[in-house]
Amino acid sequence: MNPEVVFIGLGNMGFPMAHNLIKGGFSVAGFDLLQSNVDRLIAEGGIQGVSLEQAVKSAKVVITMLPSSQSVKNVYLGEGGVFEQARPGTLLIDSSTISPEVAKELGKQAGERGMEMLDAPVSGGPVGATAGTLTFMVGATENGFASANAYLQKMGKALYHAGPHGSGQTVKVCNNMLLGITMIGTAEALRLGIANGLDPKVLTEIISKSSGNNWVLNACNPCPGVMEKAPASNDYAGGFGVDLMLKDLGLAVENALSTQCSVPLGANARNLYDMHSKAGNGKLDYGSIYQMLGKGS
Amino acid sequence: MNPEVVFIGLGNMGFPMAHNLIKGGFSVAGFDLLQSNVDRLIAEGGIQGVSLEQAVKSAKVVITMLPSSQSVKNVYLGEGGVFEQARPGTLLIDSSTISPEVAKELGKQAGERGMEMLDAPVSGGPVGATAGTLTFMVGATENGFASANAYLQKMGKALYHAGPHGSGQTVKVCNNMLLGITMIGTAEALRLGIANGLDPKVLTEIISKSSGNNWVLNACNPCPGVMEKAPASNDYAGGFGVDLMLKDLGLAVENALSTQCSVPLGANARNLYDMHSKAGNGKLDYGSIYQMLGKGS
Amino acid sequence: MNPEVVFIGLGNMGFPMAHNLIKGGFSVAGFDLLQSNVDRLIAEGGIQGVSLEQAVKSAKVVITMLPSSQSVKNVYLGEGGVFEQARPGTLLIDSSTISPEVAKELGKQAGERGMEMLDAPVSGGPVGATAGTLTFMVGATENGFASANAYLQKMGKALYHAGPHGSGQTVKVCNNMLLGITMIGTAEALRLGIANGLDPKVLTEIISKSSGNNWVLNACNPCPGVMEKAPASNDYAGGFGVDLMLKDLGLAVENALSTQCSVPLGANARNLYDMHSKAGNGKLDYGSIYQMLGKGS
Amino acid sequence: MNPEVVFIGLGNMGFPMAHNLIKGGFSVAGFDLLQSNVDRLIAEGGIQGVSLEQAVKSAKVVITMLPSSQSVKNVYLGEGGVFEQARPGTLLIDSSTISPEVAKELGKQAGERGMEMLDAPVSGGPVGATAGTLTFMVGATENGFASANAYLQKMGKALYHAGPHGSGQTVKVCNNMLLGITMIGTAEALRLGIANGLDPKVLTEIISKSSGNNWVLNACNPCPGVMEKAPASNDYAGGFGVDLMLKDLGLAVENALSTQCSVPLGANARNLYDMHSKAGNGKLDYGSIYQMLGKGS
Repeated sequence: MNPEVVFIGLGNMGFPMAHNLIKGGFSVAGFDLLQSNVDRLIAEGGIQGVSLEQAVKSAKVVITMLPSSQSVKNVYLGEGGVFEQARPGTLLIDSSTISPEVAKELGKQAGERGMEMLDAPVSGGPVGATAGTLTFMVGATENGFASANAYLQKMGKALYHAGPHGSGQTVKVCNNMLLGITMIGTAEALRLGIANGLDPKVLTEIISKSSGNNWVLNACNPCPGVMEKAPASNDYAGGFGVDLMLKDLGLAVENALSTQCSVPLGANARNLYDMHSKAGNGKLDYGSIYQMLGKGS
Repeated sequence: MNPEVVFIGLGNMGFPMAHNLIKGGFSVAGFDLLQSNVDRLIAEGGIQGVSLEQAVKSAKVVITMLPSSQSVKNVYLGEGGVFEQARPGTLLIDSSTISPEVAKELGKQAGERGMEMLDAPVSGGPVGATAGTLTFMVGATENGFASANAYLQKMGKALYHAGPHGSGQTVKVCNNMLLGITMIGTAEALRLGIANGLDPKVLTEIISKSSGNNWVLNACNPCPGVMEKAPASNDYAGGFGVDLMLKDLGLAVENALSTQCSVPLGANARNLYDMHSKAGNGKLDYGSIYQMLGKGS
Repeated sequence: MNPEVVFIGLGNMGFPMAHNLIKGGFSVAGFDLLQSNVDRLIAEGGIQGVSLEQAVKSAKVVITMLPSSQSVKNVYLGEGGVFEQARPGTLLIDSSTISPEVAKELGKQAGERGMEMLDAPVSGGPVGATAGTLTFMVGATENGFASANAYLQKMGKALYHAGPHGSGQTVKVCNNMLLGITMIGTAEALRLGIANGLDPKVLTEIISKSSGNNWVLNACNPCPGVMEKAPASNDYAGGFGVDLMLKDLGLAVENALSTQCSVPLGANARNLYDMHSKAGNGKLDYGSIYQMLGKGS
Repeated sequence: MNPEVVFIGLGNMGFPMAHNLIKGGFSVAGFDLLQSNVDRLIAEGGIQGVSLEQAVKSAKVVITMLPSSQSVKNVYLGEGGVFEQARPGTLLIDSSTISPEVAKELGKQAGERGMEMLDAPVSGGPVGATAGTLTFMVGATENGFASANAYLQKMGKALYHAGPHGSGQTVKVCNNMLLGITMIGTAEALRLGIANGLDPKVLTEIISKSSGNNWVLNACNPCPGVMEKAPASNDYAGGFGVDLMLKDLGLAVENALSTQCSVPLGANARNLYDMHSKAGNGKLDYGSIYQMLGKGS
């Protein structure tokens, strides 16, 4: 049997996304470098016994969730890749976080081959992927965005059409650069307050009602003990990893170079996360940058 | 007639605050270096014909709203100043934004002279001062905070007791450092998005529902045209001036030096605002840092 | 007549370099997008009447001096480009300042086609190019470096073999990133001294004999009036342009991203130069960053 | 017997300086919080059996070498301090590294009491102090500078008169801020070169002959193995400590705040050293910032 949906990349994010499509009634064949991930999806109702090549040839939709611009280029542009195998009319959705330039180029080439392609990176992390509450930031034509709706709504709660090809990646890059900056700024403010004898809970409460308010302060406060459920209160385990934030800040700085933008705080944040990662903290939650700023927790 | 309240410093902020106290039923004598400001308050019902020395000697409350740590020190500690003239039991409220160290020291000395003193800086700007909707961030004893309630509530809407002497200033400094960082980060994100072809209104809308969300984005978006009423859409006129933000970032960095804190982005922001001011933009709204990051608006 | 040397790119740098080769006794055919540059070289003894294709096919050496990684890739890899036309055994020398990654890749491909290629960026500017006193930083095989000696020594005084393909570009990028940082640091130190009442000449003299000593301080001091012949004393005319420094800092940051290096001050410097250029100073000497740091000269 | 010279502060720097004065033929009484330091100087010929008060009253010269602005203020301005005890005409030399503002104020007050005072910070470290080869950067009147010559030349090799009171400290602060910046920039350049496969010795050699050349590169190269005798090749032991560099960068940033200067790289450097110190490296040589930038040495 040929699946309607091919899902390539079944990691922390891709697996629960594919699983939600199955639960939503779609026939899905999953592919991953790790056979164990593939087997897990089959155990949850994924289609088995079809080769990647064969599946892509017959699918209505191909979705990818991969770790880097290079891996996405390989899967779409490589010999025997998606662009070679898929029929005109196939809908292509790349939910990886990659360079806006690469996304723009892939969207263009897809169009030349008669296919709609979406760059559709997400926010919400593994928790949102499992719950089906991801936010999708989409770069696509109007048609492409409309065609993808049935699929995206099984995986996410908020779907934003940001603009033409590449726009989804651009929004992701802009948002996450700002997030990285806000996290460090918030950590600095909390450290400074504590060094002056303030209670960080009181400081958080007052700032959250003032002009310094931001998402980080209330959703993943980096000071241990302020929010019971935040990674900061659990030795910075779980959450959004330092190395993922570093990757996104790298995409932002790279993009700023190619578009000739000034990003003084974004570049500063990238280097701080790079040093923090090199000190051995790459797997901790990105709020652990709080530790780099001071002694003790 | 002796006034109940002495109000020293009748500038953009002090005048409407004193006026609101008069409207709230208090007898207020105002003092300022500019006689025209004093006269304006008299025209609104302020007490006249009393010297500063005499007024302070008999007042129940002395409130100050002054431009710098040095001017506050002069008024309280100078020869013939408030500490020399006021009787034990007088309530002292300093709403200036000054160094936490100075606030702590003044609070201590007030206590030694038998007076409660509050460091009670505000946020909300001239608009909030006029509307009586300021936020007060207060450092004081429990008693001091309670005693001040009747007065502060005529001038503001939200009253926060942040902790002991100096804590109000610390919260203000932490909040505004974070605000300065968030403003620049937001401006960078918007510039980057636009350089990639995004519509800044769409970008603002999506980020405001994502993890990059912050107060700046929604209340004083620095990109011209995104918010009709923001200073950015009015040539950066009005709003919170670059030189005021620069002053607050200076207090933050100074405090970080004396408390041995790392504030990499705060220090970066301070230098960017300093260069922006030196290029002749000191009187513009602080969102005008957006212009420093790029060509065209 | 077929030229021994083909020289592609006859701008501010390329023209005097090609001219020095002619004066050194070589037959040189020059090529440039601007015909006037080609004609000027012919007037100085350059070979005329030969097409680029024909010249490359028969030349012993091809030298390029071009403005960007992209233009270098076009010339070597493009359809009908140098790699297609040149015979095995041709010596290829690229003196452009480009990305080390691109240089490495070109060197590899040249080798696969039986040609030695050098990445040989220079320092010394138009003055050094005219005087024949350039410094060459070379990435190449031992053989390649040796073969190029006869040509390079007509154009430069110091020839350094930095390592294999790409190493010349890497040295250039590292040196110029450090130069950009040192320039800003020196400008900050001079500004700070002057703000404290010091005579910048006295400050320069003492630092130049102390641990803060560096090339900038003595060769192109950014404070007007300290060195009579420096661009700073001539309204920052001449010298090494802001936009060229910005390009080199961009190469450094780009390289740091791809090699996963932390360059906090390098990235900071890149953004400062970017903002300085956007304020309209791209054509001034890079020492003009001194103006961004303060009011007045 | 009353000593000609009183020397207060016999630490790593003060002890060898005092010792050199004794070897130079002066009678010196040394004072320190640690009695063992005092005893060591007595063993080397220091005067014993005189109280600090008595010694200051009768001395021709008082020299101080202390760790902070505060400790210097205590010794000169405190109750029973040098200003109270010393006779008019006594020559006062403070070789501590302190805030230029404090030095200016002390110089002024000394003048009002009929004494010449020099702010005379040094460079050269414990090695230079022992060898008598320190560099003195002096703020003083012409007379004061001339009067101190006989003493300074026993302790140092180079004596610079930078300008009026405070100028010595300003030069020190400017030089060391630039030094801190140059060190980090040099470490970044070396890391970047190595990440691209360069030999750091080759890179050092080429840059040292190019525009990136600076004192750090040749005198205390931060990459292990490049210079056999540098602290970097000895696990960053010895040399100029991270916490001392941090103190000097703190003085620079503090001074920039009070003189309203922009020091973007200086402030950046201060925060990097602050984080590096907080990670437990305060006692290592300041070249160890190289380790913060990367994994492995």
